[in-house]
Amino acid sequence: MERECKKMEKAIVCPGRNSKVKVFPVNIGDVKLKGLLGSRIETNRRTSIPSLYKSFLEYGTVDNFRIASGEKKGSITRRLATDSDLYKWMEAVSCDLQNEYDRERARLLDKLISLISKTQEKSGYIDTFYAESFRKERFKNLYHGHELYCGGHLIQSAIAHHRATGKDSFLDVAVKWADFICRKFGKGRIEENDGHPEVEMALVELYRTTGREKYLELAGFFMSKPYKILDGHAFLEFPGVTGHAVRMIYLCSGATDYCIETGDRKYLGKLLSLWEDMAGRKTYITGGIGSRYSGETFGMPYELPNLRAYAESCAAIASMMWNYRMFLITGEGRFMDLFENTLYNGFLSGVSLDGREYFYVNPLASRGEHRRKKWYDCTCCPPNIQRMLASLPGYFYGVSKEGLWVNLYGESESVARLFSGNKVRMIQKTGYPYDGKVSLEISPERSEEFSIFLRIPRWADNCIVKINGRKFTAEPGQYFVGRHLWESSKENVEIDFGLKPVLYSTHPEIESTKGCAAIKRGPVLYCLESVDNPGVNLFNCRLEKTKLKERFEPDLLGGTHTVSGEILSGQDEHLPLYEKADRYPDPKFSKRRFKAIPYHLWANRGTSRMAVWLGKHI
Amino acid sequence: MERECKKMEKAIVCPGRNSKVKVFPVNIGDVKLKGLLGSRIETNRRTSIPSLYKSFLEYGTVDNFRIASGEKKGSITRRLATDSDLYKWMEAVSCDLQNEYDRERARLLDKLISLISKTQEKSGYIDTFYAESFRKERFKNLYHGHELYCGGHLIQSAIAHHRATGKDSFLDVAVKWADFICRKFGKGRIEENDGHPEVEMALVELYRTTGREKYLELAGFFMSKPYKILDGHAFLEFPGVTGHAVRMIYLCSGATDYCIETGDRKYLGKLLSLWEDMAGRKTYITGGIGSRYSGETFGMPYELPNLRAYAESCAAIASMMWNYRMFLITGEGRFMDLFENTLYNGFLSGVSLDGREYFYVNPLASRGEHRRKKWYDCTCCPPNIQRMLASLPGYFYGVSKEGLWVNLYGESESVARLFSGNKVRMIQKTGYPYDGKVSLEISPERSEEFSIFLRIPRWADNCIVKINGRKFTAEPGQYFVGRHLWESSKENVEIDFGLKPVLYSTHPEIESTKGCAAIKRGPVLYCLESVDNPGVNLFNCRLEKTKLKERFEPDLLGGTHTVSGEILSGQDEHLPLYEKADRYPDPKFSKRRFKAIPYHLWANRGTSRMAVWLGKHI
Repeated sequence: MERECKKMEKAIVCPGRNSKVKVFPVNIGDVKLKGLLGSRIETNRRTSIPSLYKSFLEYGTVDNFRIASGEKKGSITRRLATDSDLYKWMEAVSCDLQNEYDRERARLLDKLISLISKTQEKSGYIDTFYAESFRKERFKNLYHGHELYCGGHLIQSAIAHHRATGKDSFLDVAVKWADFICRKFGKGRIEENDGHPEVEMALVELYRTTGREKYLELAGFFMSKPYKILDGHAFLEFPGVTGHAVRMIYLCSGATDYCIETGDRKYLGKLLSLWEDMAGRKTYITGGIGSRYSGETFGMPYELPNLRAYAESCAAIASMMWNYRMFLITGEGRFMDLFENTLYNGFLSGVSLDGREYFYVNPLASRGEHRRKKWYDCTCCPPNIQRMLASLPGYFYGVSKEGLWVNLYGESESVARLFSGNKVRMIQKTGYPYDGKVSLEISPERSEEFSIFLRIPRWADNCIVKINGRKFTAEPGQYFVGRHLWESSKENVEIDFGLKPVLYSTHPEIESTKGCAAIKRGPVLYCLESVDNPGVNLFNCRLEKTKLKERFEPDLLGGTHTVSGEILSGQDEHLPLYEKADRYPDPKFSKRRFKAIPYHLWANRGTSRMAVWLGKHI
Repeated sequence: MERECKKMEKAIVCPGRNSKVKVFPVNIGDVKLKGLLGSRIETNRRTSIPSLYKSFLEYGTVDNFRIASGEKKGSITRRLATDSDLYKWMEAVSCDLQNEYDRERARLLDKLISLISKTQEKSGYIDTFYAESFRKERFKNLYHGHELYCGGHLIQSAIAHHRATGKDSFLDVAVKWADFICRKFGKGRIEENDGHPEVEMALVELYRTTGREKYLELAGFFMSKPYKILDGHAFLEFPGVTGHAVRMIYLCSGATDYCIETGDRKYLGKLLSLWEDMAGRKTYITGGIGSRYSGETFGMPYELPNLRAYAESCAAIASMMWNYRMFLITGEGRFMDLFENTLYNGFLSGVSLDGREYFYVNPLASRGEHRRKKWYDCTCCPPNIQRMLASLPGYFYGVSKEGLWVNLYGESESVARLFSGNKVRMIQKTGYPYDGKVSLEISPERSEEFSIFLRIPRWADNCIVKINGRKFTAEPGQYFVGRHLWESSKENVEIDFGLKPVLYSTHPEIESTKGCAAIKRGPVLYCLESVDNPGVNLFNCRLEKTKLKERFEPDLLGGTHTVSGEILSGQDEHLPLYEKADRYPDPKFSKRRFKAIPYHLWANRGTSRMAVWLGKHI
């Protein structure tokens, strides 16, 4: 197959050098993570990836392709969009291969690709749901059918495979499918978009990979049409983020990719205002989005219930994908701040510590009934969590013509290639996010003057940066810029974020958090679980204005920092639902010590109540 | 048709004299209401009833019967359970005929009954949804199909018609249907119940009306089977109220009727514990129930959001029906207290002041987007509201062997027949619920010693009762019992409930009302609408500990009492969604006067924000 792709890049997204991007990602495989994220990636590799594949075998996800290709007899298991689950899982495996090459896995991918390619029809069509008697339903119900959604995941997965292995086998399938879609959709052909946006992002990435403009154009065409399921708006008409959260934010991610490549100012303006609506009025302190069970949608502004938070794991991932793209086009710290906050809280809560079970829904309080599961009939979240974890290294650094961007912190060894071609080796020594001190060794292959951009999170309002011993104060919520002639010998950057546990307050219009406070320590949100707090009534308590103490507990939940303090706990007396204020019994409180753990670690020790937001002492 | 029914009673429900009932209802037509409820009943009669019938003609509700009976050509409009809408409306008309006989309306009922009877098949089956090609679906999908639900409404409507007019024409249709169901369902036949409980209540009432035990037995049979849609419990197995609120509480109502007739103690115990779960943990201060949009279900204990309250009008009605039945079997004031609270708040809010528009969902706060509508595709609520309004007079009084029960208060002239056969005339002079003083004239036809039972609401903690000038203090939340030789001349009972506006507090586990207060004045809940409160930020305000003032405003919303006071209103500044507590800007407040109106009158003056729960001054 003829391919116009010039460069072999291995990043999560690969904007063209002529695009309107401010920062370019580095290769996933060039960042080796240890520490908290490294261990999660390791669990993902060793446990989550193989165990989900077993579930796929058990629940017919792979067999669907065998049956649709004629390789096996039987009947298709008709769960909508189930092909995309396998594609996402293959994307996770491909990304992970960049960091740890495993011949067995690469071979398994080859086998699956060969199977998928046998399933693909001559036209390019592929979707096992619409095989057999369902053939006649193809493209009849775009609102509900998820055909382009599955195809989008096919493209993304194929690109990830191509980037990881250099092979074209899977990419050929994706290109054939995309060419088919280009013939089917567009002006004068089917003039509609998919009920579940996803293909927009994928088409832009395929344009980046192949250089063929028709994919970019088709993405633009889709976005110019009304998204019926998202209140009927075409992209530029959205008054705010609305409807199904994953769909809305996948669309925003695709629109950002489109904007990066086209430089369309109208898109950028719309994206910024949508982001402000999401981040300023419709996001949980966990980073979770999409508060409503009903339709998995965004709520009204400030509609953020705790016990009934929906906050789908996939929606947190969508937000991370969008925030990253917004960062690429603007270079602004606020986007990576929200990325990081979502990463350590609403995203990481989605998978159990042992890597075997997943949350679909991530509430901010629970009476104990909410537990992770191995499998969901609509199992979109588990493979999505896996591909995000496997690609996480790729989010750490960026390069621009000015120099090197440090977006995330964590124990790691990495390389990045500057625009000059100069290769820079970076070693982060840190216990971040539990430790607030980062020591960063920068070693360019050869001396060069360039800027280093260090993200100073908004919470780090007491941050000190030292470059080779020279002290700077750094503005929180911004990238600190240090321009310098970097010698090829090791040069040292020290950052002290001034990490300590603090209480957070909330907007008064959020009805579920009135008069409440939450505990954060740096980017990590804390919660109380009843297993650590016997005798504390999590749903009727008041935080004392006492000192919050922190402690590293090596044997707790794989080793974590806990926060403790004093709390007034309501006694479990029988109180009336409503009563005249002057007759309502004064709730009886007793003073207790409490212990909080990181929110992302909750629900790993059997049934337990949990609360993030706690009453404040008043 | 042979009928074993001995007595001609005209009450809402007519328990047999041998049943385990403590209090017997009086005839609907024997209570003539004026005042607030009288005017709402009048609007129901003059505006709501005729305008809804017009909608039925417009949307095919009546035509469905014409088409199914072969009277007209065309195709059935397939809205699930739409037959029940017409039945409920006919029940409203029948009840209303007891209080104002209208020959035209009686004739329209006759015409409709004749049409319905033509639609009924020889077997007894009737349901226009399952005509034509849908015949083969009959009883195939009880979980979803609403066939027994529609039949239940057919029975209730036919009984109301029989009681109002003495005619058997409609009752014959209902009996024929019920006999068919008795042949189809039961041990060894179809051993399932309906996805939407309703027929249980209806079957017990048909037993009461005809004396045929098979209907009572079938109700018991249904309740012994698992209700799949309500978490799969048979009635006696429910651990609490759960699932779809209307279904659950219709079932509880039917179970109470069954318990009344059978005296089954297991049922009574279960009913009391379910009621405590509902009233003590899952009911809004409006009386509304069923907090979740998703599935129209009850939430977890204390899950009672304000902006996203579902609180369907039909669920408020279900609660009133159940509470009334619980009162009949126990004689306890707490049930009529909750009935009254629901009546004046969560129920009456369901219909506009002009009687033309209806709420399906009754939130406790609104940003203005929530408005009543004339018609819903699932239009269960409008005719349900109409039948409750038309039958309201029947809830006012009761009789027992001890004497006369006064359950509700309001300007009215009524009669009741004691067990002795002695007829008692009662005149209530009062502006209740806006006025807290009630003067009650009791005039028996002949002198007799009996007790008068006066419901003293729980909120009336300073209540004085005078009988012929003699003063008693009365315990709130109980029926005050005054035994006395009542002369045939007018005797006078004066009650002063000590009405004044007060603040209410809530259970600390309700996350949406933490640190909030609501205003009530007697049974009437108040709210703030932005139209009365320019410059007050309803979602960020604090009630001052200031005197609440009350005022009657004759020109406002048909004449109503308002409550005013001082409030600190947050300025509409841009506040962060989350921020460290010590950096979160102190919200700026300015002192304002506020004016509150009864909650049931909200949304009658164009778009307006609304809030029931307000922040407290702390």
